[in-house]
Formats: sequence, structure tokens, C-alpha cells
Amino acid sequence: VKRPVDWSLYLVTDRRLAGDRPLEEVVAAAVRGGVSAVQLREKECPAREFVELARRLKAVLEPLGVPLIINDRVDVALAAGADGVHIGQSDMKVDDVRRLVGPDAIVGLSVDSAEQPAPLDLDYLGVGPIFPTGTKADAGPALGLEGLARLRAASRHILVGIGGINATNAAAVLGAGADGIAVVSAICAAPDPEQAAAELRAILSAAKRQPRRGCNPV
Amino acid sequence: VKRPVDWSLYLVTDRRLAGDRPLEEVVAAAVRGGVSAVQLREKECPAREFVELARRLKAVLEPLGVPLIINDRVDVALAAGADGVHIGQSDMKVDDVRRLVGPDAIVGLSVDSAEQPAPLDLDYLGVGPIFPTGTKADAGPALGLEGLARLRAASRHILVGIGGINATNAAAVLGAGADGIAVVSAICAAPDPEQAAAELRAILSAAKRQPRRGCNPV
Repeated sequence: VKRPVDWSLYLVTDRRLAGDRPLEEVVAAAVRGGVSAVQLREKECPAREFVELARRLKAVLEPLGVPLIINDRVDVALAAGADGVHIGQSDMKVDDVRRLVGPDAIVGLSVDSAEQPAPLDLDYLGVGPIFPTGTKADAGPALGLEGLARLRAASRHILVGIGGINATNAAAVLGAGADGIAVVSAICAAPDPEQAAAELRAILSAAKRQPRRGCNPV
Repeated sequence: VKRPVDWSLYLVTDRRLAGDRPLEEVVAAAVRGGVSAVQLREKECPAREFVELARRLKAVLEPLGVPLIINDRVDVALAAGADGVHIGQSDMKVDDVRRLVGPDAIVGLSVDSAEQPAPLDLDYLGVGPIFPTGTKADAGPALGLEGLARLRAASRHILVGIGGINATNAAAVLGAGADGIAVVSAICAAPDPEQAAAELRAILSAAKRQPRRGCNPV
């Protein structure tokens, strides 16, 4: 049985941005600051090292009840006993992934428009890039808050905005209909990842007190 | 239950070398010529395309009883229903792979010396490079026939030589103790893959009539 996941502040890792700091330390600090879910994204990492890294993150996150999601490599997620997989449009198809990981694992998918089909058994959609970003080399043009709002209107999925989101625009992303924000550089590149996460958490908590969609009261 | 595999002529694919020809056509021709096992190796291919390619090869190979092995990506092998996985020293660990694919799947490992540990539940070892090769960018220095013979003396595994093997040296590789040869460019880059495979098959059949190791009769 699936337990509910808090997608409000979703950290996507980037070891280059973490610099000399071990990734598990950056992640642990981010969780202390309020990160509620973590995606391990490694595009150049050999599978053996990827599994070892995933296991180290799992050892940090599992006792805290924070889910660990693996980007792209379903086999790495299965080997490390991660909570789920995040896939992009050129990664394995959703139904193949679901068959491999089973019904209880988390499966999330990147989408960049309301036109991309998204099976209903997905646990969330990563929507982006919302704003221009230098973190993901193959990211398409930015959707903007308008694109996010269109997707919100078209989709019943949990939507997590990603791409160029930071303390200056996080509230606007929630205001446009996202259920949470995913950040890479705003935490991984921060001198103090715990403080950066805590600042975002405070912004999100304040924003959540507002009506979630920009509709006019009748 | 595992069925025995003929490792004598093992084709490892390379789409660049296949050029404009669809990979499944090159593979089908190679099998007509006598290839007895096929490894799909794709180092830059997104997972979705990798699974589709594996399924196309499976459709060609399964009716012929020729096993399909996937390089590195255990998840692609599972999704496509391939017969097994080939892993290198920086890919997932053998025990992790075995746990994911189950006892009946084929698992092979690349080794480049007799000093590398190789669990006994491996189905074969890919030993190489035997000779210098331009096909695998990260290949180490060539083992030579002497290195292969040392590994033969030290190992009870099925040994498949790889790296720079072609019609001029295939018999010597069997003579040094290999149970089979793996080839990439000798078939993938051949103008006529069926004929290239048939030529290698004839050489291997003749070589197999010799005593397999270079020992002196008492």
C-alpha cells in the first residue's frame, strides 16, 4: 500500500553543484531544512557507483521517512531499494517501468506541456522547465507560469514545478497551481543547504495559506 | 531451468559500425552465417529507444533459439524480456544483478586479468581485450594470448575472448583456451555480415577439431 508523499519541497541532486561536499551531507542538511522528497539524478555515473550512492542516500533518508526517487535507471532503484523512479520522455515507458517496480513504488514523469499524455497511475508529474535553467542541458523552452496554469487546468495529477525555481519565485509557482516545487541549484549550490531549504520551506508554508489557484471568488 | 548456450561465436553489436543498415538486419544476417549468441551494446542510447531496439532484436532471435544479452542495463533486459545481461567492472555488481534477473537468466562479466574476482554463478566471462581494439573506447591494454591462457588455467568459467578478434586470429584464441570468441567490427562493419560470420564459423569449427589447450600429449 502506498503511503502519501509530501511533494511540496522536492530536492533533485546535482553532484557537480554540491562541489567538494559529499552528496549525502548536502542531502541530510537539506532535509533538516525541510526538504520532503529527494531525487538522485546522475547522468554520467556508472551503475555500480550509482547504486552505492543511492544506498548511502537511502541510509540517510529512510529513518527520516523521506522518499528517495532514482532518475531514469529502474535497475538502480530496484537494486538500492529506493522508493521510486523518475523518468523523462526518452527514458523507459511508464507501463514498462510500472511493471518492473510494482504498484506500490513511486513513478514520476517529466512533462513540458499539457499535450504530453500522462497515464493516471503516475504518482506525480514533474512540470518544467517553469523558468529558464542552466542545470539541465537538454531542457526545452520555459513553460512559464502560464504554461503551468494551463497544465494545472488540464491535469488531475500531482504537479511539481521544476526549472529555475528559487526563493524569489517559489510562491508564484504554487500560486499558478503546482502542488510542490523541485529545486536543484537553489539547494545543491547553496553555501548552506539547510538554510536554503528552510527559507524555501517558510515561503511555501506562507504561500499555502493563500487560495491555491488564482480564481476570483464568486 | 537454464538451457545450455553455445558461446562459440558471440556477436556484440555496434550501431555506428552497422552504418545505414538497420541493426536487426545485420544481426539476422550474422545469425544466418552462424552467430550463436548476441549482445546488444548501446552506450549512448536513451532507455526508451534501447528497449525498443532490444524488442526488435528479440523478435529476430527468439524464434531461432539464439540468446539476446543486454549490455549494462538490467532494467532494459527485464523490460524487453532478454535472456540476460552482460556487465563490466563499473556496472552493477554481480550479486545485485543476479538478485534482479533471477537464477535462470544469463549473467556475463567482463574481466581483463586472472586477478579479478568472478563469482561462480556467472554464466561466462568476457575476457579482453585479447588484441588491441578501436571499438571500445575504455578498454585497457591487450591481454594477449598469454594472458588468456593464464586466465584459462586459473578459471573454471566459460571464457569468451573479445577485442580485435577476426578471421586471422580466431583459431589462435580458441587454441589459447577460449570457449568462444566475441566479435564486434569483424561482423558489424563487414560489407556482408552473413559471409563474415560464416567464415568465422568455419574457422572455429576447424579449430575445435584440435585439442583445445596447447598441452603436449604424454
